[in-house]
Amino acid sequence: MEVVRTDAYHEHMAPHASVLTLHCPDSSGIVADVATWIGSGGGNIVDAGETRDAEHGLFVQRVEFTHDDDLDTLRTSFAPLGERRRMTWAITAQEEVSRLAVLVTKDGHCLYDLLGRCATGDLPAAIEVVVSNREDLAEAAGRFGVPFRHLAVEGDGPEARAAQEAEVRAAVRDVDPHLVVLARYMRVLTPDFVDEFDGRTINIHHSFLPAFVGANAYRQAWERGVKLIGATSHYVTSGLDEGPIIAQDVTQVTHADTPASMARRGRDLETLVLSRAVRAHLEHRVIAYRGRTVVFD
Amino acid sequence: MEVVRTDAYHEHMAPHASVLTLHCPDSSGIVADVATWIGSGGGNIVDAGETRDAEHGLFVQRVEFTHDDDLDTLRTSFAPLGERRRMTWAITAQEEVSRLAVLVTKDGHCLYDLLGRCATGDLPAAIEVVVSNREDLAEAAGRFGVPFRHLAVEGDGPEARAAQEAEVRAAVRDVDPHLVVLARYMRVLTPDFVDEFDGRTINIHHSFLPAFVGANAYRQAWERGVKLIGATSHYVTSGLDEGPIIAQDVTQVTHADTPASMARRGRDLETLVLSRAVRAHLEHRVIAYRGRTVVFD
Amino acid sequence: MEVVRTDAYHEHMAPHASVLTLHCPDSSGIVADVATWIGSGGGNIVDAGETRDAEHGLFVQRVEFTHDDDLDTLRTSFAPLGERRRMTWAITAQEEVSRLAVLVTKDGHCLYDLLGRCATGDLPAAIEVVVSNREDLAEAAGRFGVPFRHLAVEGDGPEARAAQEAEVRAAVRDVDPHLVVLARYMRVLTPDFVDEFDGRTINIHHSFLPAFVGANAYRQAWERGVKLIGATSHYVTSGLDEGPIIAQDVTQVTHADTPASMARRGRDLETLVLSRAVRAHLEHRVIAYRGRTVVFD
Amino acid sequence: MEVVRTDAYHEHMAPHASVLTLHCPDSSGIVADVATWIGSGGGNIVDAGETRDAEHGLFVQRVEFTHDDDLDTLRTSFAPLGERRRMTWAITAQEEVSRLAVLVTKDGHCLYDLLGRCATGDLPAAIEVVVSNREDLAEAAGRFGVPFRHLAVEGDGPEARAAQEAEVRAAVRDVDPHLVVLARYMRVLTPDFVDEFDGRTINIHHSFLPAFVGANAYRQAWERGVKLIGATSHYVTSGLDEGPIIAQDVTQVTHADTPASMARRGRDLETLVLSRAVRAHLEHRVIAYRGRTVVFD
Repeated sequence: MEVVRTDAYHEHMAPHASVLTLHCPDSSGIVADVATWIGSGGGNIVDAGETRDAEHGLFVQRVEFTHDDDLDTLRTSFAPLGERRRMTWAITAQEEVSRLAVLVTKDGHCLYDLLGRCATGDLPAAIEVVVSNREDLAEAAGRFGVPFRHLAVEGDGPEARAAQEAEVRAAVRDVDPHLVVLARYMRVLTPDFVDEFDGRTINIHHSFLPAFVGANAYRQAWERGVKLIGATSHYVTSGLDEGPIIAQDVTQVTHADTPASMARRGRDLETLVLSRAVRAHLEHRVIAYRGRTVVFD
Repeated sequence: MEVVRTDAYHEHMAPHASVLTLHCPDSSGIVADVATWIGSGGGNIVDAGETRDAEHGLFVQRVEFTHDDDLDTLRTSFAPLGERRRMTWAITAQEEVSRLAVLVTKDGHCLYDLLGRCATGDLPAAIEVVVSNREDLAEAAGRFGVPFRHLAVEGDGPEARAAQEAEVRAAVRDVDPHLVVLARYMRVLTPDFVDEFDGRTINIHHSFLPAFVGANAYRQAWERGVKLIGATSHYVTSGLDEGPIIAQDVTQVTHADTPASMARRGRDLETLVLSRAVRAHLEHRVIAYRGRTVVFD
Repeated sequence: MEVVRTDAYHEHMAPHASVLTLHCPDSSGIVADVATWIGSGGGNIVDAGETRDAEHGLFVQRVEFTHDDDLDTLRTSFAPLGERRRMTWAITAQEEVSRLAVLVTKDGHCLYDLLGRCATGDLPAAIEVVVSNREDLAEAAGRFGVPFRHLAVEGDGPEARAAQEAEVRAAVRDVDPHLVVLARYMRVLTPDFVDEFDGRTINIHHSFLPAFVGANAYRQAWERGVKLIGATSHYVTSGLDEGPIIAQDVTQVTHADTPASMARRGRDLETLVLSRAVRAHLEHRVIAYRGRTVVFD
Repeated sequence: MEVVRTDAYHEHMAPHASVLTLHCPDSSGIVADVATWIGSGGGNIVDAGETRDAEHGLFVQRVEFTHDDDLDTLRTSFAPLGERRRMTWAITAQEEVSRLAVLVTKDGHCLYDLLGRCATGDLPAAIEVVVSNREDLAEAAGRFGVPFRHLAVEGDGPEARAAQEAEVRAAVRDVDPHLVVLARYMRVLTPDFVDEFDGRTINIHHSFLPAFVGANAYRQAWERGVKLIGATSHYVTSGLDEGPIIAQDVTQVTHADTPASMARRGRDLETLVLSRAVRAHLEHRVIAYRGRTVVFD
């Protein structure tokens, strides 16, 4: 089975780099401690970003660095510093090509956008599987040689829905994805699903959250008479459309717009905002904590 | 008492023009009927805008036209057509200088912006009175020779609040305003106030409505972790922050922003969005119906 | 040979409608004349837009209307009115699926975007051929079953270039396109090419024109130290990057951006702005005259 | 003579902080060197920003820090490090209230905006003098108690112009300004003027530079048929509209706009963009080098 792989130059990350992300109670000397640790292992800092969340008294940092050790060695070496500073931290290798699982229903604009970005190397990723509760987008996946799994809800009631979700979950688990992308997937996921892929499931919602939660967001927006419509990409949590926001954008509408024309304009927003969030996640630029995100650009 | 008056060239409206605004059940021939009526009185159309609201089956139109009649004559002449087409309509003279009453509390950015725009002639208006529940902005009004009425709530409880609002209402009524502007006025108005100046009271709210209704909108936005903040100008109705939206805009924020820095960035949004709504209202470009507005640009 | 065809609901245009576009010296009664002509043939106006260019003393109009006649009959019937009003005018059938010829070199983001939009029905069009001076994007076209013509410049000098352009021209002519799209085609076209497809060739330029004409626009922008980068879609004329502008947009950059990261951010701008221009052209919403365009939204 | 002084809380800068800004050839250890120097003097870093300009091989940094020394002591102490690293550097006290000299001609929107921002404390500054070649804006300055100097060009020819500029220069010099703001001043300054206030003179230009240099930028924009208009704030150098750009923004226009309506829309852009640049300069957030700026937000 051919899978889309990029051979394009990966513009953003240094080759063979790892990324340390952390947040911890703010105090002095953290930056120096981290820099000293990297230097002591013979590593070099390639890129660094840091911020303070004064409201929560937290320090948040992302450090991209090159080194000669394997990940386990790095993690073992870093653990004492992490413990001493009471950090929530992760050290991750930068994948050359990250594995994506994409869930869709019937609207293909986000899926085609992601397929194109993977094909051109704009995103450093390959879509390993497209899973859907409908058949509509089989052709889209097929054009790019990506396996398509049609897993419909068979019958009514909670059991039928649970059975379908279990199949979806298995299909996703099979490809061991770095990221699960809900690219206009129109079914609500259970907490079990959310937990299994916690911190690596991104949804695109067709409104400027927290306005217009749930279905029919464009109609809701039209009825409220807003002058801008939006799209929001966020990590999926068990609360509907309540997860930490990664990216948002808006575009103007006028009184001449209908719910249908808003939906058309909104498609461009959705693809843009979703792809920004996917890129930021794959480059380990997003640090989520306490319902918020820091995104180092 | 000197009052700010503009002598600047009024760029947007034709001199001695009147404006007909209307909405009615959609059917064919309305444009022709209106044009025929204007022509039959010897008038000329200077500018026209129209739109259809297919969801509600309505036709909405604004026609700016020159003529030789007085307003009463025009209204009498138009009434039969309005009735036949079941229109909600108004014919208004374009004021050279409209009278504004501005209500404020302590934040001066919107007030200074409006004072400056009236002084340069950017807005075709004069602020006749500034009313406040606090004294902070007396100097601002004074610099421009505008009367300032400090009407504090004396004591606690609903009676004290009602007494203060009655005074505010009288102070506003005294200047017979074309428009009442709530330029960061931090008290909720009663339905009586809203009714008296219905359709001519505009508020600026410091969020992208319908997100973050009520007080502390920037803190609410910070806590939700949004990546854009907004401002919304709307007609005041008895529902808090629920009136028809006239103008909205947003600006980017990042994880480095605090509620305080969001508030600072938001000030520029608030002044811009409020002044856009005031301008549109004064030029009779806003037609509000069923909780929405059409704004002819 | 399979060609991408949309079966999606075409949201913007009425079925079986035609579009009249015109510009002429401004005078009174044009709207009524046009409406009368449409009515006299039993047609109905579906959508209309008009504007006045006071600087040039011109009236510009677009009328979308349904009718029972064929195009030749309509044109013959309209000609006397067009002549009397000294109009430059066109009556065009709204195609259900317009034919596109797309020219590319090596960057695939605009091509993939157009292929995806045609496949989902977002654009009411089919790409009939992709022509390139390089082979890089053969796979992209192939995924969607679109013929790909690799027509390289063989040898040096003006004759080699002229021979290649002649082949390109023939390949384009073969599919009788409604629109030729230069989707990051990196060769300058001769006046002969421009003339043959005059008024139906659209280019995407990677800057906010008229700033940064020609090659390396992102490097030029970086060197000037601009805080926003842009993209511009325009009709192609014989002057380099000088044709009438159809759509433009910008996005923020910071001091941390390099020419390479600007180019990456710019790709999203280029795809969006190009697709907006293509859509507007295909729906006959663009009227170009005197180096400018009116775009009825 | 009363002068506008702010007593508002200064939201952005720590009290009694100084700011070190520098750029130098990039090499490792600069951040540590600077941090060590601050710590050795008993200071604390309040805020820091840094970036690398890989194209020029430069490192650029801004460090805001508290300390107990006077500026002369700090500068003497820092000089050896600065020399060793071949830095271009400055250490500046953060003024509580910076002194501005504002040059204007006849358009008052930027002047009123700056006066209002100083009065509310939005900008940590006081306008010490308004200088103009015309009388139009005397009233504006007078409302805020700011001295107004009307210095007209008396007669024709280069000598008359030179004499007027000498007077303007003296009037500016008299108030020893931290920043000279050209708030729609319509005369070109000589290199002598530019040199005297080099690095502390900011202009607002009414276009998206480098497009539409010089006078009548809105007419130029209208004639080119652009779909967005812009404004640019930049340091003044001897090349017309060629100095390093500090801030830019744009807004949409349509075919319905005229040069006059573009100018009206542009006023809001001009005031916003100019005030952003003034704020960034006063907070020592702008580092200019090689025709570009780094602006630490």
